[in-house]
Amino acid sequence: MNEENNTSESHTDVLIVGAGPSGLMTAYWMARCGVRARIIDKRGTKVMNGHADGLRMRTLELFDSMGIQHRVSHEGFVTAYAAFWAPGEDGIPIRQNTYTSAKINESPLNNMLLSQGRIEQFILDSIQEHSDIQVERGVIAESLEYDEQQDGNLEAYPITVKLRTLSDEEASLATDPENKSKSQVARNGLYRSNLTADDWDDLIHRSKARQAKTEIVKAKYLIGCDGAHSWTRKQLNIPLEGSSTDHIWGVIDIIPITNFPDIRRLGTVTNASGTILVIPRERNLVRLYVPVQVVEAGTTRRFDRSTITPEMIRTRVREILTPYTFDFQICDWWTAYQVGQRIAPTFTKGNRIFLAGDAVHTHSPKVGLGMNMSMQDSFNVGWKVALVAAGVAHPSILSTYHPERHRLAEMLLDYDRHWSPLFTEMKSEAAESPDKTQTMIKVTELFEDFADGLKAFYGASSLVWKPEGGEEVPAVARCLIPGERFPPAKLRNQAEGGTHWTMRLMKSDGRFRVVILAGDMRKYEQKQRVHTLGHLLAGHGAVNGSLMRRYAPIPGRFDSPLDLMTIHSAPWAQAEFFDFPDILRPLDPVMGWAYGKIWCDDAPGWDRYCDGRAYETWGVDRTRGALVVIRPDQYIGWVGELENVDQMVRYLDGVLVRAGNARPKL
Amino acid sequence: MNEENNTSESHTDVLIVGAGPSGLMTAYWMARCGVRARIIDKRGTKVMNGHADGLRMRTLELFDSMGIQHRVSHEGFVTAYAAFWAPGEDGIPIRQNTYTSAKINESPLNNMLLSQGRIEQFILDSIQEHSDIQVERGVIAESLEYDEQQDGNLEAYPITVKLRTLSDEEASLATDPENKSKSQVARNGLYRSNLTADDWDDLIHRSKARQAKTEIVKAKYLIGCDGAHSWTRKQLNIPLEGSSTDHIWGVIDIIPITNFPDIRRLGTVTNASGTILVIPRERNLVRLYVPVQVVEAGTTRRFDRSTITPEMIRTRVREILTPYTFDFQICDWWTAYQVGQRIAPTFTKGNRIFLAGDAVHTHSPKVGLGMNMSMQDSFNVGWKVALVAAGVAHPSILSTYHPERHRLAEMLLDYDRHWSPLFTEMKSEAAESPDKTQTMIKVTELFEDFADGLKAFYGASSLVWKPEGGEEVPAVARCLIPGERFPPAKLRNQAEGGTHWTMRLMKSDGRFRVVILAGDMRKYEQKQRVHTLGHLLAGHGAVNGSLMRRYAPIPGRFDSPLDLMTIHSAPWAQAEFFDFPDILRPLDPVMGWAYGKIWCDDAPGWDRYCDGRAYETWGVDRTRGALVVIRPDQYIGWVGELENVDQMVRYLDGVLVRAGNARPKL
Repeated sequence: MNEENNTSESHTDVLIVGAGPSGLMTAYWMARCGVRARIIDKRGTKVMNGHADGLRMRTLELFDSMGIQHRVSHEGFVTAYAAFWAPGEDGIPIRQNTYTSAKINESPLNNMLLSQGRIEQFILDSIQEHSDIQVERGVIAESLEYDEQQDGNLEAYPITVKLRTLSDEEASLATDPENKSKSQVARNGLYRSNLTADDWDDLIHRSKARQAKTEIVKAKYLIGCDGAHSWTRKQLNIPLEGSSTDHIWGVIDIIPITNFPDIRRLGTVTNASGTILVIPRERNLVRLYVPVQVVEAGTTRRFDRSTITPEMIRTRVREILTPYTFDFQICDWWTAYQVGQRIAPTFTKGNRIFLAGDAVHTHSPKVGLGMNMSMQDSFNVGWKVALVAAGVAHPSILSTYHPERHRLAEMLLDYDRHWSPLFTEMKSEAAESPDKTQTMIKVTELFEDFADGLKAFYGASSLVWKPEGGEEVPAVARCLIPGERFPPAKLRNQAEGGTHWTMRLMKSDGRFRVVILAGDMRKYEQKQRVHTLGHLLAGHGAVNGSLMRRYAPIPGRFDSPLDLMTIHSAPWAQAEFFDFPDILRPLDPVMGWAYGKIWCDDAPGWDRYCDGRAYETWGVDRTRGALVVIRPDQYIGWVGELENVDQMVRYLDGVLVRAGNARPKL
Repeated sequence: MNEENNTSESHTDVLIVGAGPSGLMTAYWMARCGVRARIIDKRGTKVMNGHADGLRMRTLELFDSMGIQHRVSHEGFVTAYAAFWAPGEDGIPIRQNTYTSAKINESPLNNMLLSQGRIEQFILDSIQEHSDIQVERGVIAESLEYDEQQDGNLEAYPITVKLRTLSDEEASLATDPENKSKSQVARNGLYRSNLTADDWDDLIHRSKARQAKTEIVKAKYLIGCDGAHSWTRKQLNIPLEGSSTDHIWGVIDIIPITNFPDIRRLGTVTNASGTILVIPRERNLVRLYVPVQVVEAGTTRRFDRSTITPEMIRTRVREILTPYTFDFQICDWWTAYQVGQRIAPTFTKGNRIFLAGDAVHTHSPKVGLGMNMSMQDSFNVGWKVALVAAGVAHPSILSTYHPERHRLAEMLLDYDRHWSPLFTEMKSEAAESPDKTQTMIKVTELFEDFADGLKAFYGASSLVWKPEGGEEVPAVARCLIPGERFPPAKLRNQAEGGTHWTMRLMKSDGRFRVVILAGDMRKYEQKQRVHTLGHLLAGHGAVNGSLMRRYAPIPGRFDSPLDLMTIHSAPWAQAEFFDFPDILRPLDPVMGWAYGKIWCDDAPGWDRYCDGRAYETWGVDRTRGALVVIRPDQYIGWVGELENVDQMVRYLDGVLVRAGNARPKL
């Protein structure tokens, strides 16, 4: 207890501020890796409707590795097609262009739309399944101290945060500051809009006056996932750099009553009054993005948000959809925002405090990427902090977070800078509209790999080995590029015969995966190569002792931070589980042999997605195979020949703490 | 309150005895159709491990129509392959034959294995989502009276059951009568084995001595899903006819430690010591069926069950797997049973009381069908009782339950009579073993359509219209045969562009589906036919008033017990939602147009299962289409041309109560 009578003090390894999709994704990693962590959120209740909804392929692949994608697929709305409407020669809107993603077959999962609240629920359920971590709601941080002197000591708690528990009334104010009446059709849309001021200071002030319960928390790491108004970022004096445009947009989730034929298809509609973006979603809802007002250039006066109402948005949509009718009776949620692109120059302070998601990059929501980028930021920093906090990985890996994610945040802003103006440039004459919809398609195509998450562009680092000599593409596995995602494929289990996607096999459980692409074991020479590799991995050669005992365990979870997985290319019926070296299919005295570890790239004939073409997808020779290390976040870390065990061990030594070693210093 | 001080009296429409898979499936229908129902179970807790595990394609299709299949797929183990081992020429066991189902592409869902306890949980969750029905556990029925005089009055409650609430101790005794010690490795396996006596009377006796709380329940309908020892069946004096063989089998769920290569593949292993059945399942478990003893022929003495132990089963498995090693440390569950085939001559009493599942048919569990047959019994009787109790359907449909399901139960026993002896005939010489494994494959193939649920053989009735002139196959839709399942296909939504399986579209919500296979709407004549049909259905012709208002609603759920669904065959991009008649895509003033009702049989190019071949699967002309009525349980009721509306309405009139009409008498 300190100066205030009702202040206690406690310690945690990781403190997470904010329990939106980004904060929850961070907490997921702590739960999976058994790290002591706390997560707070100022709001008293979870988000139930509205907010973000776009889910890109890569995000869904990560969900599958977390074991929650089946729930998303069950409820979500797939968008694989887009239609761009603009006036035809007679001035009536027509489908000027349609678009189906060329990338649609590059992932087994299609882009989807599902409300943020459901996503949060699924991640929460997973956190609960793996740990005792609970979101502490209605809790706000009041002060942050960071003692850089203690940085070198991994056992120290250099971060001190004072937490304050809000009253129920205060917490519900944080949930929805402007809506006192619950009888309105839709919640007041300007909650969490960037048009409203931040209420954090106000909440602290009220709570102080009430002499609320406070707590001093000492933490080793702090991760700020507290949104565009990020309190954490402000405490660190990290600015958001960039600019706002002078356009105000409305967003509304409604059940439409319209004879416009493509209201249930992703697309845009343009006429002389402007452009709207149409996004169909679950439960008959359609989200519309609508330009509502241009702020007078040069004014410093705060925009008068009271002029934006669902009624005003309805009128604007009608103008743009003319001559089609448009109305709604059910409005589930709405908000308004000012378009702008801003980014923080750094995502970390001393690699002890990290910022993720909207806290470090804001943009217009129209590209359907915000929630994806935010969760992928946290997915990236989460496992790194978890493994370092657990004593499994060297703290040096923490310095890869900023370069890996900052570059992508810049691409996100770049995409938005190309995309948003297409909605506000008012060139709507019939003669120009085909050009405009063409431009929309061109911009979409330009950024598609990035937006869907099919390319990550992670640069060389301790976690990403790049081939020597500067070649971008490893000769042994032309499509397995370090720093990029491991392209999913459906494989057949050797012992069982069933088929599974790689992203579900490569569970996000904190382990690095050493993937042995064993090639065609029917060939004598290749079988020898695989057995020689097994010999080396088991410690009878280059590696001194078994690779599986070389590194510190993940305490309470796994004896080794490595998981070996073998994928061969011979026909399934011509191979046997016991053909493979012991270390690739180890025997546990209680759990028996590890039948889940040997896989086959062969088509069983009854699963159209298990087509026996994985080696081709990966650009790997079917006879000779390859050796691959995949990071815990399913990005490729290292690629080589089956003989390159020494080089692989050097890569792993640079990342993982040796077993029995004292903790390294920062 | 009556003779006992603590007896109350209440009314319910439907009382279900037993909350295993069969009872829960019945309760599901009451939940979906908003019928007042109660479900009791003598056991104090839900089944957690062991018991049934086999799930056939058709069961999974029904799960999908209930909205729970994604959870089963996430956890279950797919079996698409089987291996039959027997001694080779040198006496060492080899894979004599392997087998992949020829039917595997006839359903999008493959046969699976998953523990009964998980299935029960999924159905329970669905019941909870749709109703307030709760399983009343630790409740037993003590007496049953049925007043046949009241049969003709649908508002009467001719059934009187006295319920008794067990104490916690009694209820846990019911859960596991022989296991007092919770420290054993596996629960005592003889609970619910057919080798143990029924404990129902004993529980009533104990409970009476305690002066337990009792309740008189008056019900309109009673459904007994209370297993092989069915108390309900005994009260009705309905026998189980058939015989037991003299073979005792053990069943054990273990995590195996063995170098037998196919321990994770479905299959059999035979040698001179006997035959075992190997069934891999979720969580590394393998189930083994093992012959343990032959009862002396002609003895009436009860089999000495104390001689069967996991240790004895382990020894038997070792004998049969020789020279492969075999051991286990984890035994999750085990039991033993005496092989026999028995069936009740009738499944109903006065069409007010029904029996389903093991209550009316018992067989050896080795065909992996028991849970499927039991759930499908309930799925069949459940919707019929629910719709009659809700005043939606004529009571005459209740008389279709016995003939539809009794015939299949006989086939089940026939299958078992062919299959079980293959495990006990001891012809294991090397020269004969290939013949034996060949016979196993032949028997499997012979019963495959039936076992997987791909054929139902439901005969002509008020619910199944058979073509006139005695042809089995309707000319207009050669593969849509009344009385059979509607073969699943993946379709593209016209308004949205997304792809969905028909079994998920045809939700098990109590409604009949009128499926308009609209053919190729690009052809002028065909478009005219479809619009003429729309005209008729809307009540401007043969039907007097709109078909959608012709029948009594499902109270509190749907305004009409019919759901119209249109599937056309033109290319998706060449059709529009608004091309179709109003009645096929109705407008709701709040919910807008019914975008979910118009579907297209076209391949989008990005979904390998949506291949644009549904019309071919159904044997329907792509230009001319057809008209189909599908029952609430996804079986086909009626098939005709688009012009045969009068005939279709006669079919529906025979099943459904006209709107505004007084309730018909029995």
